Amino acid sequence: MAKLYYLDEVNNLGYGEFTDIFGNIVEHCPVIAAAVWSRRPFSDFRSMGKAFCDVLDDLPGCVKEGVLRCHPDLAGRLAQMDTLTSESKNEQKTAGLLDLSVEEQLLLSKNNASYMSKFQFPFVICARENKKDTILTNIVIRQENCKDVELNIGIEEVKKIARLRLMNIIEMHQSNI
Amino acid sequence: MAKLYYLDEVNNLGYGEFTDIFGNIVEHCPVIAAAVWSRRPFSDFRSMGKAFCDVLDDLPGCVKEGVLRCHPDLAGRLAQMDTLTSESKNEQKTAGLLDLSVEEQLLLSKNNASYMSKFQFPFVICARENKKDTILTNIVIRQENCKDVELNIGIEEVKKIARLRLMNIIEMHQSNI
Repeated sequence: MAKLYYLDEVNNLGYGEFTDIFGNIVEHCPVIAAAVWSRRPFSDFRSMGKAFCDVLDDLPGCVKEGVLRCHPDLAGRLAQMDTLTSESKNEQKTAGLLDLSVEEQLLLSKNNASYMSKFQFPFVICARENKKDTILTNIVIRQENCKDVELNIGIEEVKKIARLRLMNIIEMHQSNI
Repeated sequence: MAKLYYLDEVNNLGYGEFTDIFGNIVEHCPVIAAAVWSRRPFSDFRSMGKAFCDVLDDLPGCVKEGVLRCHPDLAGRLAQMDTLTSESKNEQKTAGLLDLSVEEQLLLSKNNASYMSKFQFPFVICARENKKDTILTNIVIRQENCKDVELNIGIEEVKKIARLRLMNIIEMHQSNI
């Protein structure tokens, strides 16, 4: 288990340490953590989570697409090569995505490809809040959306992932919540 | 020497490969490359460089600060630990920053610290377009600026660095320029 940080400690970190610790709260986007550093001090966990969400909301559309593109395909090539970030690996494992049957794997690969072909970014869903079956259903249903709607849904899922990753790093002692 | 890419090849890359190849055009900011991918096809080198610049310009202020914070201190801790990105190491070496006298090293460390203390982001300058002496002078002069001015100057330097890094990857055959 990694060290848990109290908000008092977090509020006193330099941007280098802060970005080292929180650089993957948004997958492969340390620049988001480096931007959030400006929002310190955080009075509680919620305000720190909100700071990440606010920075994501303020990004121009093409950079939001970039954020989604920094996420791996679910049970995709990186998972098969075992080169996922540790956060992503744990999340996909929790949802049962690293233990699919051959048929489920083929179905997900096909849907990852058709989703990407339509939207030009990967399907992003908060795996820790979903199980395999809902994910396999959602990737089909969400392909009915238009691109703008799906970009917004994807970013909302990134926020859910971010909050849960933050909960793994911040000491959730009563006074911090 | 790394492989050089023709624009035809670049325009046909998927976002995964594109981000792998161009992910450090802006230091430690693969999300910028992942966003620039949306701007393909590029008709020439200039339009590809402009796409990186446009995405940088469109970022909200706090994310521009984040971009600067993803850059290492010149001749700083990462250089001393030899953990710079290969691009940054080559650039700092070209400017003579990896071969400072003890006095110059102390002076630069002091000025890096005072610059960071004033602006809350590191001093960024295109090392390949400057030599040691101009860098040591500039870090003092630029501390006279206000924060907004210095943020803009820093981002303009990031653009110069980006264009030069791009020239190291793109085949500069006449038809590409």
